[in-house]
Amino acid sequence: MDCKFIAGGVTAPQGFTAQGVCASIKPSNTTKRDLALIYCDTLCNSAAVFTKNLVKSDTIYVTQKHLENGKAQAVVVNSGNANACNADGYEKAEQMCKLAADALGVSADDVIVASTGVIGQELPIEPVKKGIEAMRGTLSKDGGTNAAEAIMTTDTVKKEWAVQFELDGKTVTVGGIAKGSGMIHINMGTTLSFVTTDLAISSQMLKEALLEAVEESYNMVSVDGDTSTNDTLAIMASGMAGNKEITEKNDDYNTFTAVLTEAFKAVAKKLAADGEGASKLLICKVNGSKTKNDAKTIAKSIICSSLVKAAMFGADANCGRILCAVGYSGAEVNVHNIDVSYRSAKGEILVCKDGLGLAFDEEKAKEILLENEIEILVSLSDGNASAEAYGCDLTYDYVKINGDYRT
Amino acid sequence: MDCKFIAGGVTAPQGFTAQGVCASIKPSNTTKRDLALIYCDTLCNSAAVFTKNLVKSDTIYVTQKHLENGKAQAVVVNSGNANACNADGYEKAEQMCKLAADALGVSADDVIVASTGVIGQELPIEPVKKGIEAMRGTLSKDGGTNAAEAIMTTDTVKKEWAVQFELDGKTVTVGGIAKGSGMIHINMGTTLSFVTTDLAISSQMLKEALLEAVEESYNMVSVDGDTSTNDTLAIMASGMAGNKEITEKNDDYNTFTAVLTEAFKAVAKKLAADGEGASKLLICKVNGSKTKNDAKTIAKSIICSSLVKAAMFGADANCGRILCAVGYSGAEVNVHNIDVSYRSAKGEILVCKDGLGLAFDEEKAKEILLENEIEILVSLSDGNASAEAYGCDLTYDYVKINGDYRT
Repeated sequence: MDCKFIAGGVTAPQGFTAQGVCASIKPSNTTKRDLALIYCDTLCNSAAVFTKNLVKSDTIYVTQKHLENGKAQAVVVNSGNANACNADGYEKAEQMCKLAADALGVSADDVIVASTGVIGQELPIEPVKKGIEAMRGTLSKDGGTNAAEAIMTTDTVKKEWAVQFELDGKTVTVGGIAKGSGMIHINMGTTLSFVTTDLAISSQMLKEALLEAVEESYNMVSVDGDTSTNDTLAIMASGMAGNKEITEKNDDYNTFTAVLTEAFKAVAKKLAADGEGASKLLICKVNGSKTKNDAKTIAKSIICSSLVKAAMFGADANCGRILCAVGYSGAEVNVHNIDVSYRSAKGEILVCKDGLGLAFDEEKAKEILLENEIEILVSLSDGNASAEAYGCDLTYDYVKINGDYRT
Repeated sequence: MDCKFIAGGVTAPQGFTAQGVCASIKPSNTTKRDLALIYCDTLCNSAAVFTKNLVKSDTIYVTQKHLENGKAQAVVVNSGNANACNADGYEKAEQMCKLAADALGVSADDVIVASTGVIGQELPIEPVKKGIEAMRGTLSKDGGTNAAEAIMTTDTVKKEWAVQFELDGKTVTVGGIAKGSGMIHINMGTTLSFVTTDLAISSQMLKEALLEAVEESYNMVSVDGDTSTNDTLAIMASGMAGNKEITEKNDDYNTFTAVLTEAFKAVAKKLAADGEGASKLLICKVNGSKTKNDAKTIAKSIICSSLVKAAMFGADANCGRILCAVGYSGAEVNVHNIDVSYRSAKGEILVCKDGLGLAFDEEKAKEILLENEIEILVSLSDGNASAEAYGCDLTYDYVKINGDYRT
């Protein structure tokens, strides 16, 4: 697979424009963009994955209904209010679609809607109305970055990305925006993410590619072990790249899925690195597992451990924290064959061999762990399967942010 | 069931003496007691439960072997070093038993051994030897409280308890000591705990009673979601109360199990309240669940949520955090029938009704949540099952303690 990351986000692929404004969804917010529109000149084949939380925002039910036919032409999304656990949530989500549809001249049934923010507080529709009005006629290629800003909540950096690859003699572009940064956990299309592409692909193949790409990326990120009520990852394909439409799992499908996986892994790392309060990105790589599932289970257990996360914050090369998390992961593992190393730009250090703690150079370990991107390497001898998971350290700031989230 | 808590700990029941000293297991520790012995004048029927972590301290394998015959007469336990993931761990654990046995004049096979502290560092046996020598001949009724101190790690208060009840016209006493306060999670005999009683009961019935009592108490506590490698909860029964020995599940068995459950629940609350860095005890009570298992699953999911824990630290009555944790718990639940209240000594406030967030008096909520014991009440309408789980808030101090645990 030969692909390259380029500048841009959701408007990088042909056919897409976007915008984001400050609509003051939270009355106290008078400066931060909190409402976005993404639009495509043509009706797109579309697919999405959603949170597995039983408590769901009504935006999810509305979007699911709108995507039943595998088609969409626009996205409307707000931050500042999750529109979850509200009596009028469904109605408000439909109103958002209708307002966006009217402004963009599309059918309300072809609008994807999403919200993020505080749960259980009524969504005020008036700011949404005014914000959409303000965006009417302003959607542009440049507006993509404003859309990326508008979906940020506790994120400290906006997340947008674009990637290009060749297919069938044509250049295909894929772009996306994503938000973090708390209530993020493995095993779902975590957080809000919107992905666009000019690839020609059927809705069914788009859905399959999405599910495959998510498996090794979004589904392997954890910030705090909490699964949001609003997680939505939607993808729209305009077909404007002019490639032969992908309608089956052929080589073109495999190429696209590989590109999407690679791009999503990069997003997963960005989400983890900007996890609430995070000072370090943690990448856990497990190899030598009996099965892929065991490798994933172990990698996720380590990434999710509060004790591992706090130790990494403190740059403490405590191998006991890692061994402990391997042991309770639920994966099948021979505990007498666990090797553990820490690696960063400053080097690599082995702290555990064959399940036994080693004496090691504490100063060297400290130097390695003071970097802001740490790899935790776990080597087993149970088989040939491997996996990677992405997380972040647990810091004072995580506690601070979530000790008083609503104000 | 009619029982009363009395002063004292492991030496409260007839036949038991104990002691604890500073043995400097960690060379840097020259003041804190870190080695304890518990002894009974007679061979006791005994039972224990252990961690389910695959990575286990060798002390657990040695104790399991010694308890195969359901008999024990002494306990030797140290803090400051977990004796886990060490090449010579098994040998050292056996040496500890032998040293204790020699000093106390019992068989090494009748000694229960446990360790707690840093994982993956060799246990120095010389301090253990000297410490046991220092305790020779000093075991006493008064020494129980020293033993309770000796097993403390990051605990801020020592945990000892005793309870009395009448059985068969005799007064039976049960006493215990326990340690917290991190790496504590549901579904096992969490932490180190040693329980003594003068009840006459067979080893088999003692084991059954222990398993039943643990289910509603130790197995419902979480501090940080991490499952220790060293968890051991052992109970020894001297039979000196003179009651008719319990050898089957009769009324006497039920009485004892109820007393033990009650006492263990009190310990569970103490462990949670003194969880690493904790400023508040959280008690989550779920009722109206379809099954007992669903109720437990929901209560544990809430208690374990980092976001719930951080919100409670900040006295933020965020109902979204609770609904979210109910929704991803995995339990079967009708999300349209979830009521959520917070309760403390300052009153009670309903923040969610029928799965929908309510407007509520924020000042009143703050007042309630600023207390140091908070009940999170979740009421469902799916059935008649209920459950309780115990946890604590997530604070800056948790991060601080675990950012640099080993020094």
